[in-house]
Amino acid sequence: MIREKIDQAIGILREKEIDMWITFVRESSITGDPMLSYICDIGVTWQSAFILTAKGERIAIVGQYDVASLRESGHYQEILGYVESAREHLRSVVLSRDPRKIALNYNTSIPTSDGLTTGMYMNLQSFLKDTPYPERFISAEPVISSLRGRKTPEEIRRIREACRRTLNLFDQAGTFMAPGRSEAEVAAHVLSLVEANGYSLSWDRDHCPAVYSGPGTAGAHASPTARHIQPGHLINMDFGVRCEGYCADLQRTWYVLRPGENEAPEAVRRAFRVLRESVELARKAMRPGVTGVAVDRAARHHLVENGYAEFPHGLGHQVGRETHDGGALLGPAWEKYGSSVHLPLEAGQVFTIEPRITLEDYGIVTLEEEVVIGESGCDYLNPPQEELLYIRG
Amino acid sequence: MIREKIDQAIGILREKEIDMWITFVRESSITGDPMLSYICDIGVTWQSAFILTAKGERIAIVGQYDVASLRESGHYQEILGYVESAREHLRSVVLSRDPRKIALNYNTSIPTSDGLTTGMYMNLQSFLKDTPYPERFISAEPVISSLRGRKTPEEIRRIREACRRTLNLFDQAGTFMAPGRSEAEVAAHVLSLVEANGYSLSWDRDHCPAVYSGPGTAGAHASPTARHIQPGHLINMDFGVRCEGYCADLQRTWYVLRPGENEAPEAVRRAFRVLRESVELARKAMRPGVTGVAVDRAARHHLVENGYAEFPHGLGHQVGRETHDGGALLGPAWEKYGSSVHLPLEAGQVFTIEPRITLEDYGIVTLEEEVVIGESGCDYLNPPQEELLYIRG
Repeated sequence: MIREKIDQAIGILREKEIDMWITFVRESSITGDPMLSYICDIGVTWQSAFILTAKGERIAIVGQYDVASLRESGHYQEILGYVESAREHLRSVVLSRDPRKIALNYNTSIPTSDGLTTGMYMNLQSFLKDTPYPERFISAEPVISSLRGRKTPEEIRRIREACRRTLNLFDQAGTFMAPGRSEAEVAAHVLSLVEANGYSLSWDRDHCPAVYSGPGTAGAHASPTARHIQPGHLINMDFGVRCEGYCADLQRTWYVLRPGENEAPEAVRRAFRVLRESVELARKAMRPGVTGVAVDRAARHHLVENGYAEFPHGLGHQVGRETHDGGALLGPAWEKYGSSVHLPLEAGQVFTIEPRITLEDYGIVTLEEEVVIGESGCDYLNPPQEELLYIRG
Repeated sequence: MIREKIDQAIGILREKEIDMWITFVRESSITGDPMLSYICDIGVTWQSAFILTAKGERIAIVGQYDVASLRESGHYQEILGYVESAREHLRSVVLSRDPRKIALNYNTSIPTSDGLTTGMYMNLQSFLKDTPYPERFISAEPVISSLRGRKTPEEIRRIREACRRTLNLFDQAGTFMAPGRSEAEVAAHVLSLVEANGYSLSWDRDHCPAVYSGPGTAGAHASPTARHIQPGHLINMDFGVRCEGYCADLQRTWYVLRPGENEAPEAVRRAFRVLRESVELARKAMRPGVTGVAVDRAARHHLVENGYAEFPHGLGHQVGRETHDGGALLGPAWEKYGSSVHLPLEAGQVFTIEPRITLEDYGIVTLEEEVVIGESGCDYLNPPQEELLYIRG
C-alpha cells in the first residue's frame, strides 16, 4: 500500500505542478505527522525529511540509526544518513533540484494537512536561510487532500468491510437494548463484542460507541451514562470499527415502544422521514466538482423547510485511516471549517452524511451513512437505515 | 495526576514569570500535542485552547460537543463552548488578561515542547491580529521541560516499577539465549512474556526489544534479524515496558562463551569495565545546574582516553510518558540536539545513561541505566549491570 500511495503522490505532484513535497518529522511517536504512514513504514527519531518530486524521485534524509530499517523497507531510492545535523543533506537536495514550489504539511483549516510542527517549520527555514527556497514554500494541502481522498479500490474495500462489521454489531446492539438497561451497559456489551471479534475501534473507547437515550443528553462525543432506556425514548448510537487500518463511522436510531404502541408517534416518524430525505438529498447532490457547502445546504435546508432547527455541526466528513479524514468537508461556511467546505469534491472520496433532528420530548433522531463519490454520482457504501428501528418494552 | 500536574504547571508559570500558557489543539487523535494528556483527560475534535495562567486560572475553549465531557472531568473552572469559531472566546480571554508573555508549544530543539502545528500557530496569529499579543508569544519550552522533567514521587514510583518489570524480563531473556537461537526468536520470546504479563511496550514493537548479536549489526533502532547467536558473540538488548503510562528504557550486554572459555577475552572484559566506569563518571557528574554537554563529555572522554571511538549518539535522554522525554538531553553540541544539551539539569529528572563501545571482532558492548537527579547528586533507579553477563554454549 505504501508503494501504491507513493506512486499516486508522485502523479498528483505532476498533475498539480508541484515540484517537491517534503514531509519533515522527528520523534514520530511523540509528534507524528498524519502523512508519515502513507509514505513510510518506519518510525523515526531524529529530524527526518521524506522528499518526493514530480520527476519521481524518492529521497529520505534520516538519522544514521534509521538508515538500515529504511533501506530494508525499500521505498526510497536515495537514503542519506547523518549523525550531527540534517542541514547539509537537506540543503544539497533542495539546491540541486531547484524546485519552484516546495509543498510542506501545514494548513490552517485541515488537520490531516497540518502535521508539520511550528519548531520544525522554523528549522526548515533556518536550514534554507539565504536561499530563495523559503519563499517557495506552499501548503501541501492540495497534494494531501487528493492523496488521502482519492481512495484506491483496496482502500474502498477495507472501508466497506469496516462498515459491514460495524452494522453487524449495530444489529447485535439493538437486540440487547431493552427498557431498564443503561447506556453504559449497552456500550459495554458492544465493546465485549468488539473484543470477541478482535476488532479495533475507529475512535477513543470512551465514546466508541456513543449511546444517547432519551431527551436532554449530551448528544455527541460524550461517554455513555447510567441513564436507563425507557419506553418513549429515542436511542441513538454512534460507532465504528476498523478493517486493516480503515475506519467506519455510522449512526443508527431506535425508538422504544410504549405499552400499547405498535409504532412511534407521528412526530417521531415524521422527523425520521424528513431526516432520511435529507440524507438522500445530500447523496444525490454529491459528485466531483460540487463543494461541501452546497451539499450541506441541501440537507440543512430540507430540515429547516420542514420546521426543524439546523444541526449545530457539519453534515459530514471524509473517512479513511482517520475517522475524520481528508480535506474537503460537508459543512456550512463557519470559520472553524475554513477552506475545507469550499474544496471541490473528487471521485474516490468517502464521506459520512450525518444530519440530526432533536425532538424535545423524545431525544435525537440521527442517521450517519457512508457514501463513495464516483465519476458522476455518489453511492452508499453500506445499506442505509431506511426505517426507524424499534425496541419492544 | 492531571490535577497535580496542572497545579505544578501553575507554580512553574509563577516561578518563570510567564503570565499565560496556551495549549492549542484540534483533532487530537490526528495531530496530538504531547502536552495534552498532562492537562486534560479528553480528546478534542475542533480547535481547542487549554489556558493556564500564573494567577491560577484554568480556562478551556472547546467545541460545543466537547463541553459536557470536559465539565465532567472537572479540571477547568471556566469552559467556553462554541459552534462556529473559537476566535471570539480566545480574543476575549487574552485581551481581558493582558498577558505580557504568552507561552505556546513550539520549539526548534525539543520535540515534547513542539506540539503546536504550523497551521494552528497561524490560526492563533490570525485570531489575535491587530493586537499586541502575537509579539508576546514565547516558546513554552521552559514550562514544559520543567513540568515533564520534575517528576512527582508518584511518577518516580511508576518509572521505578517499569524498570523492575523490564529487568525481570531481561533476566528471563538471558535464560532463553543460546547458540543457534536467532535474534528474532529471542525477541519473540520476550514479546510472549510481555503479553503473558499484560504489559505495554515503551516503544514500537518492531524494535522493542531490539536484539543485536555479534559484529556488523545495525546496532540500534533496527528489528531483530534471523542472525543466529554464536559463541564469541556479544549480544545486546535494548528494551522497556511501561507501568501506568511511564516508560523504562534499559540495555544489557551478554557474552557467549566459546568452548573452553570461562570468561570473555580480555578485550571484551576491558571494554565492559571502561564502559561501566564511563556510566559511573556520568552519574557522578549529574546534579542540578550541570548541563548535558558536560555530562556527555565526561563519559565520552573516558572512552576516548582509553582508546575507544566516540559513540555516534548522545549519552542519554530523559524518560517519562515518552521513552525520549523532557527537555534537557545528555549529548554533544551537535546541531540536531539544538538547545537541549545546554539546559541545566533539574532535581526530579529521570535520565538514561547509555554509552557504547563497538568491538570489531565481537559486537557491541552497551549499557543503559536509568538515574534520577536529587538535590545534590544522582542515583540509579534500578540495580545497574556491574558485570558482563554470560551465555554458556
